[in-house]
Amino acid sequence: MPKKDKHKPSPPSVRDALRVPVGAPVDLSSYAADATPLGPRDKERGVAATALLADPLAGLQERLYAASTAGDHRRLLLVLQGMDTSGKGGTVKHVIGLFNPSGCRIRAFKAPTEEERAHSFLWRITKALPEAGEIGIFDRSHYEDVLIGRVRELAPPQEIERRYDQINNFERSLTDSGVTIVKVFLHISYEKQQQRLLERLDNPEKYWKFNPGDIEERALWPAYQEAYEIALERCSTPAAPWYLVPADRKWYRNWAISSLLLEHLTALDPQYPKADFDIEECRRRLLAEAPDVTAG
Amino acid sequence: MPKKDKHKPSPPSVRDALRVPVGAPVDLSSYAADATPLGPRDKERGVAATALLADPLAGLQERLYAASTAGDHRRLLLVLQGMDTSGKGGTVKHVIGLFNPSGCRIRAFKAPTEEERAHSFLWRITKALPEAGEIGIFDRSHYEDVLIGRVRELAPPQEIERRYDQINNFERSLTDSGVTIVKVFLHISYEKQQQRLLERLDNPEKYWKFNPGDIEERALWPAYQEAYEIALERCSTPAAPWYLVPADRKWYRNWAISSLLLEHLTALDPQYPKADFDIEECRRRLLAEAPDVTAG
Repeated sequence: MPKKDKHKPSPPSVRDALRVPVGAPVDLSSYAADATPLGPRDKERGVAATALLADPLAGLQERLYAASTAGDHRRLLLVLQGMDTSGKGGTVKHVIGLFNPSGCRIRAFKAPTEEERAHSFLWRITKALPEAGEIGIFDRSHYEDVLIGRVRELAPPQEIERRYDQINNFERSLTDSGVTIVKVFLHISYEKQQQRLLERLDNPEKYWKFNPGDIEERALWPAYQEAYEIALERCSTPAAPWYLVPADRKWYRNWAISSLLLEHLTALDPQYPKADFDIEECRRRLLAEAPDVTAG
Repeated sequence: MPKKDKHKPSPPSVRDALRVPVGAPVDLSSYAADATPLGPRDKERGVAATALLADPLAGLQERLYAASTAGDHRRLLLVLQGMDTSGKGGTVKHVIGLFNPSGCRIRAFKAPTEEERAHSFLWRITKALPEAGEIGIFDRSHYEDVLIGRVRELAPPQEIERRYDQINNFERSLTDSGVTIVKVFLHISYEKQQQRLLERLDNPEKYWKFNPGDIEERALWPAYQEAYEIALERCSTPAAPWYLVPADRKWYRNWAISSLLLEHLTALDPQYPKADFDIEECRRRLLAEAPDVTAG
């Protein structure tokens, strides 16, 4: 074989294309929110390509779950973060909807309750983790405590500072115990958020998704972008990197996150367990039964 | 209007066709497990008809959830019971898979843990109930405590006897508080179970679903059928009737349960809430913003 083949690069992966570099400064303004890295060229192709991922995703999910029945402790946790209207809920509907719901554990984190505030910020997170074989989905997460927590000064600055390391240690303990963490930042533009908020005001079936408080949060856009930059920079680790998904185009967002999940599940390569019983004996016992015990 | 029109019967509903009569003896042998009451005529039509229910189901689910954000406490609880291989898991995959997963709360009940056994049999059930606006799904339920509980004599006979009334009182308290309970017994034949168990032994990707203990449970088929007859007879109440779904044909099972859910959700008629804010003022505020706070 010629030498150059030995060093042939792997085909480009969505993971490589979207991973936030570890240990480097993050400048969100350098990422176009309407970009489509590695993705299909238009909506029609994007929707079709995502539909083709449904069967492989569901198949890998079943293997992951099946493996857990034989002692495989591995599981996957998808963390979704992003500004209002960035498509966290839409991702759950369109991407997680491709999986068997019985193997998914979904949790949306709102403002913490009084009981939750009385504990460490990681307490409620720990309780919502997926079990072995499951796919966990966090719609918002512990990162809120360094995002709105930082922007709204919900805790003293030193406390906020400590949390980045606490998050990294926490996530490292998860990956050490068999959790594959896929952290996705849904990156939308300021203009796209305005458009989506106005759409909610134009459609009576979307009023319930609108909260006037969203306008006040939007006024803090630069502070939130900075808080995201710090979180992505300090918490994109080798064990649990962040992925930045341009999310102005919903079809690209769905394709990219489906592809990220597919690549991670494929790398896990979960296996159906072997039979831990005597197959032939069980077959004989079933076939040797009276034809119908219910008769007579 | 001629008198007969006033008394024109409603079009036949799946609810009416499958409901277990309240207060009457139940003889399971009188129900064919391969019947298709009110249903499409064959698999091709059945699969197509079920696919057509996906959009209406997801639409009603969104309305139910949206209504809960404005104080509507209503929710739906689907209870799935049936012998091994009757298709409880398949129902979750194919029917619940039609919904937005973020509004579904799924719980599979296994043999109770030590902690669960130390409480009333309804304790773990109560903890798994859906929240307002959600669709809850129980794969097995409190009925196991009068099914395997009765057949395997896991509690004294007087205790088992008391449970039927406890269940009826419990379910009545749920319906009184806004829970629509849809209890489905998946009725399969003894021969179909043998066939499905043998299929699991023939397919290495299904070994993990097989347990030799299933053969021992199967030997108690008549006792289980009797326990089901008693449970259906004593716990099919006006507030929470049982539905008997012939389940030898998977495509009919999926169509029938989808149709049952659609009829119940349609009857609830959940409504998108009105705006509780000034729409015009919010629109003005959004449009009056600086074009892009992120610039410069």
